[in-house]
Amino acid sequence: TQQDLLLAAAYVYDAQYNRNIPFETSPQAVRLYNLYNHWAMQATTYFFIFVDLSLAVFEDPAVYPLPFLATSLAEVLCLLVFFGRLVHFAKVTPRNVFWKDTKNICIVIAILGTLIDLIIYGALKISNINSVRWSRVLRPVFLINFAESHQIRKVFRSIRNTLPEITYVFLLFMFSVLMFSLMALKLFGDRNLQTVEGSPYFTNYLEIVFDMYVLVTTANSPDIMIPAYDISWLYSLFFITYVVIHTYLFMSVFLAVVYNNYKKHLKNEICKLAYMKRRKMVEAFNILKVKEGPEFVVKEAQWKELVKRVAPDISTSHRELLLRVSDDEQKGYVDKKSFVRLADLLNIQVIAMKIQAHPLENWMPRVYNSAASQCLRSMVKHRGFVWTYDVIILINAIFIALDERNPLISYAEWVFLSLYILEILLKVYTYEPRAFFAKTQFWNWFDTSIIIAALVATVLNTLLKSTSQYNSQQVLDIVFILRVLRLLRIVDSIKRFRVIMTTLINVVPTMLTFGELVLVVYYMFAIIGMELFQGKIQFFNMNSTAPLALVCGNPALKDSQFAQGKYCVNNFNDLLSSFIVLTELTVVNQWHTLANGFVLVTHQAAKLYFMAFHIVVVIMIVNIFTAFILEAFYVEY
Amino acid sequence: TQQDLLLAAAYVYDAQYNRNIPFETSPQAVRLYNLYNHWAMQATTYFFIFVDLSLAVFEDPAVYPLPFLATSLAEVLCLLVFFGRLVHFAKVTPRNVFWKDTKNICIVIAILGTLIDLIIYGALKISNINSVRWSRVLRPVFLINFAESHQIRKVFRSIRNTLPEITYVFLLFMFSVLMFSLMALKLFGDRNLQTVEGSPYFTNYLEIVFDMYVLVTTANSPDIMIPAYDISWLYSLFFITYVVIHTYLFMSVFLAVVYNNYKKHLKNEICKLAYMKRRKMVEAFNILKVKEGPEFVVKEAQWKELVKRVAPDISTSHRELLLRVSDDEQKGYVDKKSFVRLADLLNIQVIAMKIQAHPLENWMPRVYNSAASQCLRSMVKHRGFVWTYDVIILINAIFIALDERNPLISYAEWVFLSLYILEILLKVYTYEPRAFFAKTQFWNWFDTSIIIAALVATVLNTLLKSTSQYNSQQVLDIVFILRVLRLLRIVDSIKRFRVIMTTLINVVPTMLTFGELVLVVYYMFAIIGMELFQGKIQFFNMNSTAPLALVCGNPALKDSQFAQGKYCVNNFNDLLSSFIVLTELTVVNQWHTLANGFVLVTHQAAKLYFMAFHIVVVIMIVNIFTAFILEAFYVEY
Ligand code: NA
Repeated sequence: TQQDLLLAAAYVYDAQYNRNIPFETSPQAVRLYNLYNHWAMQATTYFFIFVDLSLAVFEDPAVYPLPFLATSLAEVLCLLVFFGRLVHFAKVTPRNVFWKDTKNICIVIAILGTLIDLIIYGALKISNINSVRWSRVLRPVFLINFAESHQIRKVFRSIRNTLPEITYVFLLFMFSVLMFSLMALKLFGDRNLQTVEGSPYFTNYLEIVFDMYVLVTTANSPDIMIPAYDISWLYSLFFITYVVIHTYLFMSVFLAVVYNNYKKHLKNEICKLAYMKRRKMVEAFNILKVKEGPEFVVKEAQWKELVKRVAPDISTSHRELLLRVSDDEQKGYVDKKSFVRLADLLNIQVIAMKIQAHPLENWMPRVYNSAASQCLRSMVKHRGFVWTYDVIILINAIFIALDERNPLISYAEWVFLSLYILEILLKVYTYEPRAFFAKTQFWNWFDTSIIIAALVATVLNTLLKSTSQYNSQQVLDIVFILRVLRLLRIVDSIKRFRVIMTTLINVVPTMLTFGELVLVVYYMFAIIGMELFQGKIQFFNMNSTAPLALVCGNPALKDSQFAQGKYCVNNFNDLLSSFIVLTELTVVNQWHTLANGFVLVTHQAAKLYFMAFHIVVVIMIVNIFTAFILEAFYVEY
Repeated sequence: TQQDLLLAAAYVYDAQYNRNIPFETSPQAVRLYNLYNHWAMQATTYFFIFVDLSLAVFEDPAVYPLPFLATSLAEVLCLLVFFGRLVHFAKVTPRNVFWKDTKNICIVIAILGTLIDLIIYGALKISNINSVRWSRVLRPVFLINFAESHQIRKVFRSIRNTLPEITYVFLLFMFSVLMFSLMALKLFGDRNLQTVEGSPYFTNYLEIVFDMYVLVTTANSPDIMIPAYDISWLYSLFFITYVVIHTYLFMSVFLAVVYNNYKKHLKNEICKLAYMKRRKMVEAFNILKVKEGPEFVVKEAQWKELVKRVAPDISTSHRELLLRVSDDEQKGYVDKKSFVRLADLLNIQVIAMKIQAHPLENWMPRVYNSAASQCLRSMVKHRGFVWTYDVIILINAIFIALDERNPLISYAEWVFLSLYILEILLKVYTYEPRAFFAKTQFWNWFDTSIIIAALVATVLNTLLKSTSQYNSQQVLDIVFILRVLRLLRIVDSIKRFRVIMTTLINVVPTMLTFGELVLVVYYMFAIIGMELFQGKIQFFNMNSTAPLALVCGNPALKDSQFAQGKYCVNNFNDLLSSFIVLTELTVVNQWHTLANGFVLVTHQAAKLYFMAFHIVVVIMIVNIFTAFILEAFYVEY
């Protein structure tokens, strides 16, 4: 029955954390399964996924170059860890289930692919032939497919479900773009018009299609219509109609399709999860049940043993509370209905609301309860105290905006800092410190950490200045940022703002899943982008006097908008730069200037890379993000 | 009892068309009320509203200038009509209700304001002093507040309901923008950096705020971050964080707030309308009811009289059908429950689905039913027929893209046109013409009208060319557009496309309400914009050699991006140009270039005009439009 408890605990644990891995039920397999789910094993896997992904920082083209031998050895080590983890999983789960799961097959293919690629690349390198490390694109596969990242897989499933519907809308949209491009060719192609830059206007069909696609993203509006509009205002109607249909109507339809699918999919997922949870709890019940009168139940002793195993951290009083809820008539056993609820009960945070005396009151009650002290405390609790500090913050804001180099302003900063520290000390004196710094008191934590960090940074800055006459720019920058962040506190004073902020803060955890998704997509595009464009554009500072500085080191960029906009820093010469370029492409504005720059240094086909990025990131992912915010605000606000 | 019928008919009519005007119930008032609702009266009002609005085309700064006397006389005439309409309404509705209605007060104020403005402006003009015709801003008041435009008032109510909540989010958003601007000032202000154009980078707080606001709209991304990013990639994180918080998070929150309010408001409106409709039908019932056994009912004769009055156009058989539905047990009377449903029953379109013989079959049955004819008809009905024409359309698309001047291509166009005409003739021969051209057959109507228009335009173009050797560009442009539009037909062949298109077409009527809303807002901003900026920027063609052509006639624009982008055509020198500029501002891209241009020729404060436009149109109206599309697709698709 120890083994029964072990198995039942595994089921309850899975139910509690919504884990859905089918595992063998032999005691040995269950122990292996518990080991598989141990946090240290998961952390190790994530660590090596992180190492594997960050190899791109050290591989050519590198931010910090390392020899190929070093990076390839590190990669082989990562692959070994991934393989080990996969073997562990294979031992836990039934064999036929293992090979039916796409996740595992993806990992196997990625491992094999990477090995083959490493061998070929290494062999060619020894023969001094440079080839392409194509398998690097596969690295995010590990991040997505290991069992611990079920949040991001949920988003991928959501994308896969949306894909068929969005494809039809997209095809109709592209058909319409092609049609309007044809019209533009017929209307303007034979007129010998010129764009603002002096190139021919609407003469080549493929270029028109790209320009019209860019117009959907609004990035070349209104420039694209100026030459036609100069002839007659009637032609501007052509472009306005185009923008209304494509930018407003179609883009909203994309959002609508994504949003509807997101909602539908969310509902399905929730239903499925609830069903799986219940099924697992019933399995656990069936293992532990004994017959009591007409019904099957779980005895109190068994139940307590189970809870101890599943949640070893909770206090005895908390466990007693759970038992009281599960066995409300104190019959000495838990019936099926109550037992099934256990997984949810364990997820409820129980906060011990003991009104504790202030430590100072225990330590020196006479001083703490004296008239002066009580007066001080009631003053701090008064609304006027908050208002006073709101006024101080506003005055502080003005002082921040004033010139730093005035010594008076510089001293004022010390005054403000002392005032803020005084405030925190007064509050800690007045309120019970453990309640003041409770987990839920976001703003107290925020305030205190900002003030302490500002204090440390300001002192450090002053020290550096007085000892070495040298202002460290980094420290100074941090001081500035912290100083301004302090002003954020005023938001907490106004109730409506607090509500909005709370909703925004609650949204953050799920936003991290989107961060992960964006990382995956960016990583793949960055690797491809680096292979395509590395070294084609070089970075020169805006004031550089090098001969090719004005064309970013590539004569093909002469007179291009890319070079005129001083965009040399936007290149694919290392992972970091690539990520920043991709961010700029996500923001959309000027993406056609970036795209045209890379087209000029390579080939017209490079446009496909940038269009693909726009379709994947802006049309799909940004819309999913918006859908998620819409739903979150519908639920929370 | 004739008077009872009159009153009851008025109630039913109001219920049927969701009209909610309280009116006096004396027979004379009801007759006046019916006159008030007569379509000719409504059309007259709309006509004069249109005349009043379009006066701006003829007033200085005018597209087509007319003397002040002419336009002011026309305006007085319009005001008289509006006043007459208002008096008519006052006669119909109870006095205390009339003066409690904001609509009427708005109209009275607008009429008085316009009169006062006209008198002052006229008097000053006689003394040769030019003043501002400020009352022109009030003109859209008439469009909004006359009782017939309840759709647009619904949108305005929706905006008013959303306003408080969106204001709080907006204040928080602006607070955050101000904070980040302060950070930017501290981080970059003292570094002597320069923008790409060579002006100082982030040194003036107010200018930073504007630049950071522009960054939210993404219009100056990535240019704004390039100088800082050139120093260190860490500074790019500042801008990326800013964009993520403001462009992605806050803008989605704006959409979420608008969408949630829209949904809530829509539900309330629908409930209210249903309640009002029921109440009016009960009023009508109470007027006509007689006691029949234990319950009150309306006798069949009375009921028929009522329907004849309310819907004089429907056929006797249709009326009999309605009666059969309302009195399903043929008891000779209609009870309350059935009577209340009458308003909805009248709104149901009854289509007479008679399978009629083809007129040709009646006219010459032997020919039409001969073997050859039947073979032809079954050929047209075959799927291969549709496919053949799909292939023809695709080939046609290629021919359109080829060069017009090749005579072979030019002849091919005649071939295609004949093929399309042949198709329509064959279809009309095969299918019953009245069914083929039924109201619901959107694509048949579309096809036929496009082909006939193309035929007329092509013939016209050929005639012009052969008689005068002169190609009329307008006719040629229309020929091109029609030729390409023909390709749209292929959409109808693919089922999934047809579904999306149907949804889009169903959305059009409500989009017209948005068109009206946009017209109102554009009109107000255009009038203000013309007063502020007229004549400050002049239009010169891109190839003009006039001395000030490169600076759009204003030396203040020297070296500005406005002049470099050849934006001279974007000015507020007449209503038409203003509307196109405002459209460009709605599309957002480059709006800061436009704004900076107008700032250079006037004053920094002009930025407020452009920011106000962005807040009203992009943050409010575009989001409402998106919300509407989201909801429409949720319901329809
Ligand atoms: Na843009």
